Amino acid sequence: MAHIALDASLPGIRGPMAFRPETARPLNELVDVLLRGPHPLSPGERELIATYVSAQNECRYCQTIHGAIAAHHLNGDEDLVSHVKRDFEHASISDKLKALLVIAGKTAQGGKHVTAQDVERARSLGATDVEIHDTVLIAAVFCLCNRYVDGLATWTPSDPDFYRQRAALVATHGYTAVTLATKAAHTREP
Amino acid sequence: MAHIALDASLPGIRGPMAFRPETARPLNELVDVLLRGPHPLSPGERELIATYVSAQNECRYCQTIHGAIAAHHLNGDEDLVSHVKRDFEHASISDKLKALLVIAGKTAQGGKHVTAQDVERARSLGATDVEIHDTVLIAAVFCLCNRYVDGLATWTPSDPDFYRQRAALVATHGYTAVTLATKAAHTREP
Repeated sequence: MAHIALDASLPGIRGPMAFRPETARPLNELVDVLLRGPHPLSPGERELIATYVSAQNECRYCQTIHGAIAAHHLNGDEDLVSHVKRDFEHASISDKLKALLVIAGKTAQGGKHVTAQDVERARSLGATDVEIHDTVLIAAVFCLCNRYVDGLATWTPSDPDFYRQRAALVATHGYTAVTLATKAAHTREP
Repeated sequence: MAHIALDASLPGIRGPMAFRPETARPLNELVDVLLRGPHPLSPGERELIATYVSAQNECRYCQTIHGAIAAHHLNGDEDLVSHVKRDFEHASISDKLKALLVIAGKTAQGGKHVTAQDVERARSLGATDVEIHDTVLIAAVFCLCNRYVDGLATWTPSDPDFYRQRAALVATHGYTAVTLATKAAHTREP
């Protein structure tokens, strides 16, 4: 049971977001810009960074939903998502993304772990300043989301199909739109 | 030197915020709602939570600027801010805030560290669900900010007066307004 009175029908971050829409709005906007805005990294690659960080932080809800969204963007390749979470240096992703995942993982441990050498490796493999900046910020944002979800002991569904269905909605419509739709649906209830 | 090409005149989070205004805007809005919006906890108490978490995460820029903002709200009491960072259980703050700081510190370690007993203690001392929710989210947001600032190796000024002056501006005008003013000032430069 969650630590505070949340809508029991809403899993993961959706419970506290419905509880506090004033903070949910800017948080969803931040995630939409970072994961879905115009970018040299594809939405699938950015969702892999979010998934990897959430796995490092052992947040089951976030790694499962963002893993499902990543797979949705990557032609349904759930095996690739699992491989990235387990051992990304040997996964079928670009060398640039591997270097960015090193930066993301170290950001999750604590910002000071990121070294000039880590950044130089990413740059030598083609990463731009925006990609390096956004990798650090995506990792930092998911350190937020993982703690928000687990710090309030929110509900984590176990059925993988739940995440696949939600992932299709988010991948198509975005974080802000899907959250607003949830809110509207709840507003219509008696 | 920062890991990416940031405006060298802007310290801490202000460098990456000026570099990427698209993400700065929702992040500042989130911080404004949490630390300055209508609330049962005073702005000074909420800034103490931000300061304590930043100190636990050893982010020198964030703990110093938010410590200065907290002191500004708390009649300039910099000793109280130091005491909270060092040993909050014996500081001159309410028992409710002490219980909330326990929750904040555990959220920073990782959300699963927060126990039902921690939440029950806070509730028994008068904390509402909104206060518990916002404590977890403030702690989580500063786990983001600390990693953003340190993960990009931003500049941390050493002069305490720098932080005091900036704190007075932020305490009066808010995070979004002060960031926009900085941006406008830079836009006016040749």
